[in-house]
Amino acid sequence: MSVFYHARRISDKYYLDMRMNQGVEWAAHCAALLAALPPDVAVSAAALAEFHGLPAPYLAKAMQSLAAAGVVVAVPGRRGGYRLARPAEVITLLDIVVAVDGDADAFRCTEIRRRGPSAVPHRYYSPRCGIAAAMWEAEQAFRESLASVTVASIAEGVRRDSPPAAVEKGRRWLESLLTR
Amino acid sequence: MSVFYHARRISDKYYLDMRMNQGVEWAAHCAALLAALPPDVAVSAAALAEFHGLPAPYLAKAMQSLAAAGVVVAVPGRRGGYRLARPAEVITLLDIVVAVDGDADAFRCTEIRRRGPSAVPHRYYSPRCGIAAAMWEAEQAFRESLASVTVASIAEGVRRDSPPAAVEKGRRWLESLLTR
Repeated sequence: MSVFYHARRISDKYYLDMRMNQGVEWAAHCAALLAALPPDVAVSAAALAEFHGLPAPYLAKAMQSLAAAGVVVAVPGRRGGYRLARPAEVITLLDIVVAVDGDADAFRCTEIRRRGPSAVPHRYYSPRCGIAAAMWEAEQAFRESLASVTVASIAEGVRRDSPPAAVEKGRRWLESLLTR
Repeated sequence: MSVFYHARRISDKYYLDMRMNQGVEWAAHCAALLAALPPDVAVSAAALAEFHGLPAPYLAKAMQSLAAAGVVVAVPGRRGGYRLARPAEVITLLDIVVAVDGDADAFRCTEIRRRGPSAVPHRYYSPRCGIAAAMWEAEQAFRESLASVTVASIAEGVRRDSPPAAVEKGRRWLESLLTR
């Protein structure tokens, strides 16, 4: 088993392509839903999972990440659950991506320019490799794009783009949930 | 073992953060090195690995990806190896990232807006969820940034930023390799 595990570890590192944690999608939809509700209304992770047709234990994890990052607040009690920690106008898609997926760089520079037969003592190298700098500039463009989108605008877009019948069904379901 | 494997699969999907394949860094450095050589000179994967202090079997894989994507050409024979397939001025960092890491979207939309108690028949939904659209717009900004950087400019930057002693040591090593 340990050999198998090792092989998986190497292949994970080498073969997995760059992808976002699936929880990002879930968290973004949950945040958009919370943004559409009155600010003092909290919704449980179980209800959020049911509303979105998602596996509750995994969604709970994503919501805990949002809470840990200060995007949502966990409200205790019978009417408890999650609500947005701040107005939806000042929460961005970047806040959600970072909360669930972390803020590590997608590109990891291992300073291979300092290895091999051309190597000289480390103190002679410029602080940043040009290849890493170009990669990180692209990642910065990605982040700036996400930071320009608020949860308020997403919630508005979801409402605008949803079939009216779906909005009405969702409204009724939430109403019955909140008056349970 | 199958249960273990399954658990790893789920946790990979859920927990791994967004990161680029490590081979992207290696491939970018190799492309920059090839760009600094006369266009008809080919360098073997083994020599590229030695020059960069990298594990040869893994680098071979990254170079094969570059070849499959038409970024480099594999030249057979005793003086064979890899050379750039096109002038370094028309190969971009995006070409390299896509060659090694694939061109799949980092964000995968699973259309969760169409699930749960608010669901209506699929034909009523707009073609793209607004959350996915915002994510893909950010990914497009990332790609455009990478597409604006050529291998020629990276090679120039590597030469400019490298300690002169390292450039000289690298030059001598390559010279002895190519006249072997």
